[in-house]
Amino acid sequence: MSDFANLDLERRARRGAAETVFCAGKSTAQLVEIYRRFHAAGEDAFGTRARPEQAAAVQEAFPEAAYDATSRILLLRARPPRPQTGLVAVCCAGTSDLPVAEEAAATAEFLGANVERHYDIGIAGLQRLLSRLPRLRAANAIVAVAGMEGALPGVVAGQVEVPVIAVPTSVGYGANLQGLAPLLTMLNTCAEGVSVVNIDNGYGAGYLAWQINRLATR
Amino acid sequence: MSDFANLDLERRARRGAAETVFCAGKSTAQLVEIYRRFHAAGEDAFGTRARPEQAAAVQEAFPEAAYDATSRILLLRARPPRPQTGLVAVCCAGTSDLPVAEEAAATAEFLGANVERHYDIGIAGLQRLLSRLPRLRAANAIVAVAGMEGALPGVVAGQVEVPVIAVPTSVGYGANLQGLAPLLTMLNTCAEGVSVVNIDNGYGAGYLAWQINRLATR
Amino acid sequence: MSDFANLDLERRARRGAAETVFCAGKSTAQLVEIYRRFHAAGEDAFGTRARPEQAAAVQEAFPEAAYDATSRILLLRARPPRPQTGLVAVCCAGTSDLPVAEEAAATAEFLGANVERHYDIGIAGLQRLLSRLPRLRAANAIVAVAGMEGALPGVVAGQVEVPVIAVPTSVGYGANLQGLAPLLTMLNTCAEGVSVVNIDNGYGAGYLAWQINRLATR
Amino acid sequence: MSDFANLDLERRARRGAAETVFCAGKSTAQLVEIYRRFHAAGEDAFGTRARPEQAAAVQEAFPEAAYDATSRILLLRARPPRPQTGLVAVCCAGTSDLPVAEEAAATAEFLGANVERHYDIGIAGLQRLLSRLPRLRAANAIVAVAGMEGALPGVVAGQVEVPVIAVPTSVGYGANLQGLAPLLTMLNTCAEGVSVVNIDNGYGAGYLAWQINRLATR
Amino acid sequence: MSDFANLDLERRARRGAAETVFCAGKSTAQLVEIYRRFHAAGEDAFGTRARPEQAAAVQEAFPEAAYDATSRILLLRARPPRPQTGLVAVCCAGTSDLPVAEEAAATAEFLGANVERHYDIGIAGLQRLLSRLPRLRAANAIVAVAGMEGALPGVVAGQVEVPVIAVPTSVGYGANLQGLAPLLTMLNTCAEGVSVVNIDNGYGAGYLAWQINRLATR
Amino acid sequence: MSDFANLDLERRARRGAAETVFCAGKSTAQLVEIYRRFHAAGEDAFGTRARPEQAAAVQEAFPEAAYDATSRILLLRARPPRPQTGLVAVCCAGTSDLPVAEEAAATAEFLGANVERHYDIGIAGLQRLLSRLPRLRAANAIVAVAGMEGALPGVVAGQVEVPVIAVPTSVGYGANLQGLAPLLTMLNTCAEGVSVVNIDNGYGAGYLAWQINRLATR
Amino acid sequence: MSDFANLDLERRARRGAAETVFCAGKSTAQLVEIYRRFHAAGEDAFGTRARPEQAAAVQEAFPEAAYDATSRILLLRARPPRPQTGLVAVCCAGTSDLPVAEEAAATAEFLGANVERHYDIGIAGLQRLLSRLPRLRAANAIVAVAGMEGALPGVVAGQVEVPVIAVPTSVGYGANLQGLAPLLTMLNTCAEGVSVVNIDNGYGAGYLAWQINRLATR
Amino acid sequence: MSDFANLDLERRARRGAAETVFCAGKSTAQLVEIYRRFHAAGEDAFGTRARPEQAAAVQEAFPEAAYDATSRILLLRARPPRPQTGLVAVCCAGTSDLPVAEEAAATAEFLGANVERHYDIGIAGLQRLLSRLPRLRAANAIVAVAGMEGALPGVVAGQVEVPVIAVPTSVGYGANLQGLAPLLTMLNTCAEGVSVVNIDNGYGAGYLAWQINRLATR
Repeated sequence: MSDFANLDLERRARRGAAETVFCAGKSTAQLVEIYRRFHAAGEDAFGTRARPEQAAAVQEAFPEAAYDATSRILLLRARPPRPQTGLVAVCCAGTSDLPVAEEAAATAEFLGANVERHYDIGIAGLQRLLSRLPRLRAANAIVAVAGMEGALPGVVAGQVEVPVIAVPTSVGYGANLQGLAPLLTMLNTCAEGVSVVNIDNGYGAGYLAWQINRLATR
Repeated sequence: MSDFANLDLERRARRGAAETVFCAGKSTAQLVEIYRRFHAAGEDAFGTRARPEQAAAVQEAFPEAAYDATSRILLLRARPPRPQTGLVAVCCAGTSDLPVAEEAAATAEFLGANVERHYDIGIAGLQRLLSRLPRLRAANAIVAVAGMEGALPGVVAGQVEVPVIAVPTSVGYGANLQGLAPLLTMLNTCAEGVSVVNIDNGYGAGYLAWQINRLATR
Repeated sequence: MSDFANLDLERRARRGAAETVFCAGKSTAQLVEIYRRFHAAGEDAFGTRARPEQAAAVQEAFPEAAYDATSRILLLRARPPRPQTGLVAVCCAGTSDLPVAEEAAATAEFLGANVERHYDIGIAGLQRLLSRLPRLRAANAIVAVAGMEGALPGVVAGQVEVPVIAVPTSVGYGANLQGLAPLLTMLNTCAEGVSVVNIDNGYGAGYLAWQINRLATR
Repeated sequence: MSDFANLDLERRARRGAAETVFCAGKSTAQLVEIYRRFHAAGEDAFGTRARPEQAAAVQEAFPEAAYDATSRILLLRARPPRPQTGLVAVCCAGTSDLPVAEEAAATAEFLGANVERHYDIGIAGLQRLLSRLPRLRAANAIVAVAGMEGALPGVVAGQVEVPVIAVPTSVGYGANLQGLAPLLTMLNTCAEGVSVVNIDNGYGAGYLAWQINRLATR
Repeated sequence: MSDFANLDLERRARRGAAETVFCAGKSTAQLVEIYRRFHAAGEDAFGTRARPEQAAAVQEAFPEAAYDATSRILLLRARPPRPQTGLVAVCCAGTSDLPVAEEAAATAEFLGANVERHYDIGIAGLQRLLSRLPRLRAANAIVAVAGMEGALPGVVAGQVEVPVIAVPTSVGYGANLQGLAPLLTMLNTCAEGVSVVNIDNGYGAGYLAWQINRLATR
Repeated sequence: MSDFANLDLERRARRGAAETVFCAGKSTAQLVEIYRRFHAAGEDAFGTRARPEQAAAVQEAFPEAAYDATSRILLLRARPPRPQTGLVAVCCAGTSDLPVAEEAAATAEFLGANVERHYDIGIAGLQRLLSRLPRLRAANAIVAVAGMEGALPGVVAGQVEVPVIAVPTSVGYGANLQGLAPLLTMLNTCAEGVSVVNIDNGYGAGYLAWQINRLATR
Repeated sequence: MSDFANLDLERRARRGAAETVFCAGKSTAQLVEIYRRFHAAGEDAFGTRARPEQAAAVQEAFPEAAYDATSRILLLRARPPRPQTGLVAVCCAGTSDLPVAEEAAATAEFLGANVERHYDIGIAGLQRLLSRLPRLRAANAIVAVAGMEGALPGVVAGQVEVPVIAVPTSVGYGANLQGLAPLLTMLNTCAEGVSVVNIDNGYGAGYLAWQINRLATR
Repeated sequence: MSDFANLDLERRARRGAAETVFCAGKSTAQLVEIYRRFHAAGEDAFGTRARPEQAAAVQEAFPEAAYDATSRILLLRARPPRPQTGLVAVCCAGTSDLPVAEEAAATAEFLGANVERHYDIGIAGLQRLLSRLPRLRAANAIVAVAGMEGALPGVVAGQVEVPVIAVPTSVGYGANLQGLAPLLTMLNTCAEGVSVVNIDNGYGAGYLAWQINRLATR
């Protein structure tokens, strides 16, 4: 069989951050080998969507690898952590959105941003959101995570000056359609400054928030 | 050919309101004949979605028929207006939602409710909505009309005690999917007390608001 | 990590009923903590969609918590039950719709409505439905639950004067599309007075029926 | 260019009825030529979905061709009409469904069935339908045409012994999705004996009703 | 709790066949009780989509109940079998369609039709189908079952005089969309005489085939 | 404004055929300018989906430009025609599919293939197709165009040895969904050797057939 | 009738830019009145999706209003233009995407960004894109506009360090589904740093690019 | 019960390759029997999508049967392997696409093509793809496998002269919609020479690549 993985080790030079490992859909053996190659190349291996058994296998090979069960991030460092600068805010509508919000927050922190979390501030109790506005306005970029109806990003964006990265989650049931409903809500918001990433894609939102924060703090 | 229309003249006794005429899809000749039969039976002919040329044809036969170009309601009265009681609030997110909001308001008024209108109070400028809350809280039922992302009904419902009837509109483009996006938003709202009618169905919302208002003022 | 839950303890004052706990998607530890906080604040903790193992964990901490396996409601009271007034009718089309119908009925009862149940009265045997009409007409609001084709709410609404809250269920297969088919049926019904909540959302329907019943019995 | 049409003149022998012309999407010149070929072969040319200008062009070439503007059927006979036997019932929910219902009725009559029409008997006024049951039960096959929610076929089938051919129509708006909603309703009905043809396909329903009626009267 | 099941024991008189039990979604306890009630009323209990554990529970209570693992039909007779008359043909495209085809065949046999089976005659090897045409033409009604592309019913219908009842199955993957692809194929077939039932609904197809066969053999 | 068009004049060297002009969505002025640039560069301008008024404008500037109203191809030659080699077969199911089939045939001819056309051979009259099999088997590649149910490509592929390029068309109505139904049929066919291009994409099918034919005749 | 428009004149203070006018769906009379109110308040009226007749009506009232037919932007200034800083790049895949790309570019320029345009650089001729990389890398934010398959944003993002705002367009046909296909492509891209706005929403992309550019140049 | 399988043993003569076994959805007993019949007829049994337990059952009966866990192909030879000629290239975007890519590669090899594999060359790191272009250009047909956004086939096709067979995979999440997103991307590509097979259909792509390669090497 042909070689199954083709690491893009020039990515840090080209894009400002190294390649990330999408753990879902990879066999345990493949994953351990990929972590081994990153490590051998002196590069951090930052993996998303790692299941506990995948994490355990990598940790058996590399006991220093760190796994967070909420965000499902599995990190094996080969370099010192980046300093954290600026400010990114991560907010979410409900407790069930936590895994996605934490994936966003941990990604932005890993890449080099200060992060503040504002969780469970959905629109059914608007005063919870309004009380956080001063802190949200202090950030360079806001990640807004919501399932069900997905109205949070639009309401936030209407009150702030900075970009809002909307992350629909698959939290909900029935006409939620596994996150399609909040995805559509967010794409259709009439508040300017909102852009959208894939359903449950906390990683992508955290990465983008870091990019914007970096531009703002250069 | 068989007879094309089969009026349900017992409906007032059975349901508390007479049958309504859905003008869309009927030929002009059919529509004039239907208005004639209602009138001959001593019943108001209340038609929705009447196009201007349909209205003109009915008005030629019955000059007293009244047509409103915004709500597209065509009314030929055969009975005295009902007294208006209680209070229904109709609000909408943007100017483009007006035809649907007016259809709801005019329907509730025709059936016998006092109606207050609160238009263009979408969530991108939240203070416009918050300033109307005291009046919205005074109503027995609230109709909330919105296109694009459709977040208005959920935000309103989170602040009031009474039922909110959500009407998605086909206002928007692209991922709005002709109103499917706000329909899904409204079905998924986490604020209790919201129920939904068909896209652009101002008539149905106004009817239901009148039913609830009638129960509250019996 | 930031705090994961942000209780909205002013909701009773603002909306007439306290916040409800959506148990799905929460970890057992999170759920026990949320019930603890409600209880400490002197507020009833009323949770929907509780799985048996979630219920067991809460009951271990609070043996007085009551769990109903059909409706999946998990209730930990901190206040005396509300008196039940007026009348809400809950009907469903088939035996498989029972969990959703019971969720609606139990919600309305908890909030303070008398409830009558009329189950397995789908349209394939119309006489079963027709024989219940006198009782349905005695209610202030009717919850009509149906899967498969979802025709029940429209047929009921055509025979009564009061609002019908339609609840599509995911009962069915194939072109049922996990409840989308009855959802569409209900949104398109030509019988006035029908509004729709999310697929399988018995809780939302019971809440709304209670709101209407409360207005009617004030 | 290759020849554009390839008539299947053995179809009468193989299937019991000659090929039919689907007029939509054909140029006027193509259509006149096709009618000419059928006529020259001594075969009836029975065309569906003929637009008025198509009919006019064919009638210019063949003044004896008959066009019905409601059903949009354009017929140029080359053979004596078939005798009509048995009984097919065609019913529809509303006045706007007439073109489809008439297409079904005229097709079954052309092929050789007696047809009774029962129009505007939708479920919002159930007594209109119930009063027709004796006549519906006298038929060998029933065509039930409905748009909007599409509940009529299931309600009818629950009351009769014979097959019900359900025809969804594109009458409606919003979540009707151009007839997808009633199509799904009909496919999901829990009443046995219902099968479904394409949206607006009155022709197919009339053909099938004739097939069944022919089997019953052999 | 209200009673969960409401048997329609007049159905045999009204429709020519007794009510059927849809076993999916019912608890084992509910199912045993339903079989008990049918049996006590002297009526056959004919259940579809029975899982093995459901069958075992009913057989524990009624050892004479018969279960077929392919068609998933669970039958507890209280009356003598009906005589079988006429002829129904059941064909399917591939081996994986067998459970649905067998459900259709067993239903028609139970209700009183002779049935011939023609399995694995999909269009990829057309000669397998063509060799069966004489037997298919001998039937009063044909049930054609197919997954994947679902072309079988249209090809069959183009060669015969009798109605073809098309049953799409969920056999396939990817763009099959759990049977939506063959469902759409069958609804759009240009061969007359095809009507469609829900995905995997062998029962409904067998019932309808029996209705037509009964009309043909009266 | 920046320049609106950026011709890829190296494409002939890289891909074996020059860039093609997709005329839809371009203004008349833009189109004339694009044809002018191709001509000035000594390259054929081969445009698809040209509307008559676009063709007229280009022909005013270049009277030698040739326009075919069926295929909607607008060709302005700057080089001698390529010699035609090998054999491509283009077949279609019905007369209404002609514009797409002609687009495929004309594209393959322009690029350098001999083409045979077999039109109106849909599966409702199978013998029309079977009689063409010897000619279809003589081709190096077959383009099979079909709307409605889209079964033609699968039936053809089951009888031949060479690749079948399936082109779904938007011919049909209702559940055809503007060509999605035949697209799904073709993607799901169980006959090997079928691949699919976009709905109504005769150009793409003709191009691919030419590529295969060229490989076979090298 | 209630007042139809409710200007949000505090928006500049709250969000850094004034409210924008979405012209689609507004009557000419409403639009002129809205421009009058903005002007009277000393605020620029910047309208998107203005049709030519809307522009003409506003220009009759305010001859100084400027209309651009490609981007469909209608601007009536009441304040001096903002200085342009930093750099935003706007690229698009094909000539037919120009209206959307120009809407993005003109929005960012109006709000205060320098803009470079790179049009018709789709992936079918990759070298056109690769030759622009140095200029794209010089920008603080990139707007990438594409219809059809929508691959451009992902390919660009893989080569740069800054955020890429992806705008799907409705350019295409068939399985393009009015822009849903490129929308899905862009949401699923594996290149980090891409976020998506609604189909054809050049305005939203230009606004967001300006926000990011402003953060980078503060 | 009727016989469940109807082998098409003339297929090798008619199509150039024997029938293949689609293992999914078949019982273990059915599968062993099918392999037995192929073997008894002197024909290779080549099965796709075999689960490990299916493979084990066949291997118990035929120890010489070979099973590959990645491609899920189960092969029981009864004839000597075909000689491998020409060249087919199989490339894929990511490691998670391997099972589909290997199914394609193994199918083409079994049928008689030389195959080169180029894995993990997705567009996020374009240089990985560009470096493989010389080898891709040496092939007679290219299979390009991709999940997520599915851009790989279009980018490849823009750089080569030969047909590209695009295989969307269900790798991804959220708006990937189980492979519908890359399927749509591939159908809409503006690069000529791309055709598409069903999601995850590596077998079909390998078969078609072999057909083209065979034509090129005849």
